[in-house]
Amino acid sequence: MDFFDVVSIEEARGRLMKAFEDYQLAREEVLILKCTDRVLAEDIHSDIDVPEFNRSTVDGYAIRSKDSHGANESIPSLLTILGEVRMGEIPKYKVGPGEAVYVPTGGMIPEGADGMVMIEYTEKLDETSLMVYRSISFNENIILKGDDIKKGAIALRRGRRIGPEMVGVLAALGISKVKVYEKPKFYIISTGDEIIGLDEKLEMGKIRDINSYALHSLIMQLGGEVVGRTIVRDNYELLRSEAERAIDIADIVLISGGSSVGARDYTGRVIDSFDGKGVFVHGISIKPGMPTIIGEGRRKLIFGLPGHPVSSIIVFKAVVEQYIRQKMGIIDIMPRVKATMDFNFPSSPGKETYQTVKLKEIDGKFYATPSFGKSGMITLLSDSHGYIVIKSHEEGVYKGEDRDVFLL
Amino acid sequence: MDFFDVVSIEEARGRLMKAFEDYQLAREEVLILKCTDRVLAEDIHSDIDVPEFNRSTVDGYAIRSKDSHGANESIPSLLTILGEVRMGEIPKYKVGPGEAVYVPTGGMIPEGADGMVMIEYTEKLDETSLMVYRSISFNENIILKGDDIKKGAIALRRGRRIGPEMVGVLAALGISKVKVYEKPKFYIISTGDEIIGLDEKLEMGKIRDINSYALHSLIMQLGGEVVGRTIVRDNYELLRSEAERAIDIADIVLISGGSSVGARDYTGRVIDSFDGKGVFVHGISIKPGMPTIIGEGRRKLIFGLPGHPVSSIIVFKAVVEQYIRQKMGIIDIMPRVKATMDFNFPSSPGKETYQTVKLKEIDGKFYATPSFGKSGMITLLSDSHGYIVIKSHEEGVYKGEDRDVFLL
Repeated sequence: MDFFDVVSIEEARGRLMKAFEDYQLAREEVLILKCTDRVLAEDIHSDIDVPEFNRSTVDGYAIRSKDSHGANESIPSLLTILGEVRMGEIPKYKVGPGEAVYVPTGGMIPEGADGMVMIEYTEKLDETSLMVYRSISFNENIILKGDDIKKGAIALRRGRRIGPEMVGVLAALGISKVKVYEKPKFYIISTGDEIIGLDEKLEMGKIRDINSYALHSLIMQLGGEVVGRTIVRDNYELLRSEAERAIDIADIVLISGGSSVGARDYTGRVIDSFDGKGVFVHGISIKPGMPTIIGEGRRKLIFGLPGHPVSSIIVFKAVVEQYIRQKMGIIDIMPRVKATMDFNFPSSPGKETYQTVKLKEIDGKFYATPSFGKSGMITLLSDSHGYIVIKSHEEGVYKGEDRDVFLL
Repeated sequence: MDFFDVVSIEEARGRLMKAFEDYQLAREEVLILKCTDRVLAEDIHSDIDVPEFNRSTVDGYAIRSKDSHGANESIPSLLTILGEVRMGEIPKYKVGPGEAVYVPTGGMIPEGADGMVMIEYTEKLDETSLMVYRSISFNENIILKGDDIKKGAIALRRGRRIGPEMVGVLAALGISKVKVYEKPKFYIISTGDEIIGLDEKLEMGKIRDINSYALHSLIMQLGGEVVGRTIVRDNYELLRSEAERAIDIADIVLISGGSSVGARDYTGRVIDSFDGKGVFVHGISIKPGMPTIIGEGRRKLIFGLPGHPVSSIIVFKAVVEQYIRQKMGIIDIMPRVKATMDFNFPSSPGKETYQTVKLKEIDGKFYATPSFGKSGMITLLSDSHGYIVIKSHEEGVYKGEDRDVFLL
């Protein structure tokens, strides 16, 4: 009865990468005001020093540090004030022995000076006489030219998801546009005779299309674009013509549903009907999510995802998202917390198991309880905070064990 | 010299919440295809049962479970097949004693049946005769009406950041639009005579505006909207007229910069010049970020953020983001990982210290190393994975200690 040829998730991922090894994600240039959460598609080299000049990190006086040596509350150094440096201006003065120039925080250090004494440790006797009550060391309170970013250095690496601090680096370098990966284009097809859209009247025996909405949201979070989204009856011809439309305009086609045997068969046959490698993964040993199909037609990637909403979300995360992350070379850390399991849970041998859990925080420590429910219940996910991954060689989870919980 | 009246971060947050206790965030209705990562501003009640009928979770036969009792490989039960239920259709048959009806996964369970036997454990002898080789229990392989979501229940609570699984729940309930919080409108003013925009030529003594770009990115990640972004010289009149334009169109005004004493003074004076409570926080004992001003003018919230990019990002996260989260009642878990500190680090007594760290993963465990650098260096953040928060009553961090690292 079972026509699947189930492989491990590692094998499935491997076949997928191999089938598309020559495939390059497209890149595009975007303004840095539009690049947040996109993935950097180039290394960023600095062609300037940041800062480009020695800057003060305090409000105070630029001096020769030697002139402060030995100074303290009872025996101050007496220096001559030449004047002040204004913000954003090149200093008019050179600091010689026994001389001082006022510099505000961020101001340029005048030539000759090699330290800043904070204004709190000085006293102005008159317009030109300064008492310094503390000794400073060489380069104290100065950020030197190139201290932050050196000219010629790689400031940011390809594959990083761009956050505020990276936008800050780009601005510091005077870069207004960066190359990021184009948003992968997805086309979502929900199949099933029982599936109806949100705009249709719910009749007995029918159920609402959940998958196309949940997948749409997953694609938004991943940073993709949805170029089409439809419901198709369980019919080979209808599915094939919709899939043909999809591969014309999308990079990745997600066919979800077809949990009944006949319908599953259609998805595989449709993929095989296009020029290309056809179906190369027909079942993955993950739980939930076994009845997953992966194939290639006309150089486009086509997934047959399970009909159960939870399975389809898990497979998206475990396979589709993982593929995009690998292709983009994403190097960020997956959001997750460490939690103590407060349950024993035997997993299915030989299967990678995704178990949804609820978290409770007690004194800054997380405890995880499994969310149990019947297969296909969407509340299994929506009532959970995250999930744990039990590898296929593991026997399960033991109470008291600490595990990574990946946040939903 | 120091004209700040520094308060603890808790006190600063408390004064901020109190000053805006009557302030209600606006709400708007959005399509569920547009609601990902927005924050739910209403409880979602279910006005239907999900599913609305008893559904099969497997491909197989709907039977009276009693008819399978005692059945096994050697002594199967023999049942009469009445026909099949098609996906999305109301069953034409009622299952009586000794009878079976074929139902695909997701199909509706016919009246009279109280269990599904998987097709794998049956054998069809002819069109009407079925051998059942396994005993099933009451309601086995059936998801009952309302099992997923009960009619009248609260399916989703206000304050949750909407993810794919929640979009799935909304679709299941037939809800196409939800109320979310409007994106808070920010206006960013970067001040400083030394600050120049990305489109200007970099002259010696000047530096690029980093803050307005980094803050813009923080606002994007927070789910806000930037309605204005400008650079203003250190001049009271110019700053006041820009701030006036800002409070006209924004909910929150961020004035960043003014690290020099005079400029800091302008920000406070500008806030106090408008009708309202004026400045109510003038210095926060956090590190970095002390010279932070919070005030109210014409019912709008105005922040004076430090000029150092790192300080300004940290204050945004610790105060601005925190305020929005509290106002929206956000109940999600902040992305963070637990890491073992591989360093001793004494913190400043009485100050809440935000220390940036780099993470290293060894055998699934994270180790944190501090990122050190001079005050104001943007690479302090961009070369870090996250930060730890050392509370003001703590003396620092000890090597070997496990701490939460909040991810950047």
